[in-house]
Amino acid sequence: MGTKGKVIKCKAAVAWEAGKPLCIEEVEVAPPKAHEVRVQIIATAVCHSDHHPIDPKAEETFLPVILGHEGAGIVESVGPGVTGFKPGDKVIPLYTPQCKKCKLCLSPHTNFCEKLNLTKSPLLDQELMEDKSSRFTCKGKPIYHFFGTSTFSQYTVVSDKNLAKIDDDANLERVCLLGCGFSTGYGAALNTAKVTPGSTCAVFGLGGVGRLSAIMGCKVAGASRIIAIDINSEKFTKAKALGATDCLNPRDLDKRVQEVIIEMTNGGVDFALDCAGGSEAMRAALDCVRVGWGSCTLIGVAMGDKGLTISPLELIMGRTINGSSFGGWKSVDSVPKLVADYKNKKFDLDALVTHTLPFDKINEAFDLLHQGKSIRTVLIF
Amino acid sequence: MGTKGKVIKCKAAVAWEAGKPLCIEEVEVAPPKAHEVRVQIIATAVCHSDHHPIDPKAEETFLPVILGHEGAGIVESVGPGVTGFKPGDKVIPLYTPQCKKCKLCLSPHTNFCEKLNLTKSPLLDQELMEDKSSRFTCKGKPIYHFFGTSTFSQYTVVSDKNLAKIDDDANLERVCLLGCGFSTGYGAALNTAKVTPGSTCAVFGLGGVGRLSAIMGCKVAGASRIIAIDINSEKFTKAKALGATDCLNPRDLDKRVQEVIIEMTNGGVDFALDCAGGSEAMRAALDCVRVGWGSCTLIGVAMGDKGLTISPLELIMGRTINGSSFGGWKSVDSVPKLVADYKNKKFDLDALVTHTLPFDKINEAFDLLHQGKSIRTVLIF
Repeated sequence: MGTKGKVIKCKAAVAWEAGKPLCIEEVEVAPPKAHEVRVQIIATAVCHSDHHPIDPKAEETFLPVILGHEGAGIVESVGPGVTGFKPGDKVIPLYTPQCKKCKLCLSPHTNFCEKLNLTKSPLLDQELMEDKSSRFTCKGKPIYHFFGTSTFSQYTVVSDKNLAKIDDDANLERVCLLGCGFSTGYGAALNTAKVTPGSTCAVFGLGGVGRLSAIMGCKVAGASRIIAIDINSEKFTKAKALGATDCLNPRDLDKRVQEVIIEMTNGGVDFALDCAGGSEAMRAALDCVRVGWGSCTLIGVAMGDKGLTISPLELIMGRTINGSSFGGWKSVDSVPKLVADYKNKKFDLDALVTHTLPFDKINEAFDLLHQGKSIRTVLIF
Repeated sequence: MGTKGKVIKCKAAVAWEAGKPLCIEEVEVAPPKAHEVRVQIIATAVCHSDHHPIDPKAEETFLPVILGHEGAGIVESVGPGVTGFKPGDKVIPLYTPQCKKCKLCLSPHTNFCEKLNLTKSPLLDQELMEDKSSRFTCKGKPIYHFFGTSTFSQYTVVSDKNLAKIDDDANLERVCLLGCGFSTGYGAALNTAKVTPGSTCAVFGLGGVGRLSAIMGCKVAGASRIIAIDINSEKFTKAKALGATDCLNPRDLDKRVQEVIIEMTNGGVDFALDCAGGSEAMRAALDCVRVGWGSCTLIGVAMGDKGLTISPLELIMGRTINGSSFGGWKSVDSVPKLVADYKNKKFDLDALVTHTLPFDKINEAFDLLHQGKSIRTVLIF
């Protein structure tokens, strides 16, 4: 209450330059304007997408920036016109907004919202608040927001369309994963691929949370066989614990992995999910789905990749390629339900958190991620 | 009855060499073996796919061959074990078989059948009967079948899994179009794209029947706007008569056609269908579908084309690419129903037949097709 309406000075990780470690700085966080909420972040995880804007290969970027989009926290104060949130509410910031009024929000067929600038890469959107200004400054300079969330700050300001109110007893050190990685992979299996009971699935990708959550989604959907593909065999123990029935490392095979999958499944899987977005894995994912009705769902984007070249004949044989962002979940509506599902043990977030570190060690968390040593590291303020 | 069990000598168009006109020859047609039916073809149309195997650019081909897969006729005799057909039945040969017993036929999700060799290009399958022999000879040489149909012969032999029995009062000079082109385009809109009432559609492609039939499918499905795209503006009168609300010739536009469509529809169409399979049209078809739920359906294959290169981001934005062969229709079950729908004036096949010629003028029919002067030419024996 003492901070309401005032600028808050707090700790944040600022990306000043591409290709450099983040810097822990004292930043100023302005009070929320109309339809904005200031949130005290309690826990945040680091995700590959946080690295894209500071990747030296990125074609376009906004710097300096406060990254972070997989966080959970508590409402500190609300701006004018905010009716859905009050100080003390537990919340999860959402990079996919849900205004509930636009044509997209009113359609049952998509979880996009017109608040997003859909002509841009989603990775470069929401770098400012809706009034085209930032709430962050550091050393006298304005700092860009990221994804409308910027959870790498002890306090952040988000639009009330980018925020989900969750149960008061939610464990913020776990449900922060619902802000991106878990929901994306899990929802891709359930909402986008629409995996069916008794089906066969293949899950490709080098990531941690996305791939493992897709496996968990396939399992919850009732798939009878879930083949996990990774070039890091160290990930297989966890994949099996979470539902994979078979694990394949393409580097250990004499043939191409898609050929092995087609043989194992007598013609190919019903559903393939690719979480990494690289050409080679996407090609394998499309190749390994069954003629007639196989579907290939793409949920990852690899920076600078050359893409997937398809012949129409591959699809005329009855295959489908689709994709989704944030697992197809209508964010504001769905995240509180996912929090309840976690509480009711429908899925296990604990297994995905391999490391917990103080926020100051954020660069260490990125190193663990890039080296494939962590699935998720949760940072605590 | 006088011919049952005997070799029939009759007229056929034989492709002896790639890149050369077909030759009208006297051929010998052996009696049907077990589960085969010998059919007197009354009418057959010519389709672009008939040209693929004799295209000098084709990578693999079987010659000499009797082409043709869009025909209708009357059963002359049946082989042992045939229970569904008797002499005198009106029938349509089907290049997509339906055995009704295999895993694919038993699935509601596909119209493929395991009788097809799905590891091969469908354009090069069914070149022999199931016992790996041909029923055709000419000048002492065996002649390959094509697509399991070979309708460019006054008599042909087909598997009883590749044949639909139709109404006795069906007009064979029209319903022959249900053997390929019409069913493919019309079904792609209804069964594969699943065009919804009130939706917006774009139909791409240089073909005649496929594109126009896709327009007819969109109209029957209740689309509110159907944009037809062709580089031959002479086709627009007919496209509008059959349901197109707007026609665009990319050569007459200052911008790329996909940009014009996105502007016209305030964000893109709900459904795009590409009937030609060329890289440029496929790219435009994918680009012009709406973020969130737009779907792009591919039904054409262009010989020697370089394909479509996609970025995962395009699909992650909520788009789908799919495809189908023979419009997704379960062939034996559906073609008789389509014949009934034509009789009940649900759609108009008459508008698609621009030329009727005697069978001997088959090369003239191909010239009309390649020059874009015909939509469909029906050849009468």
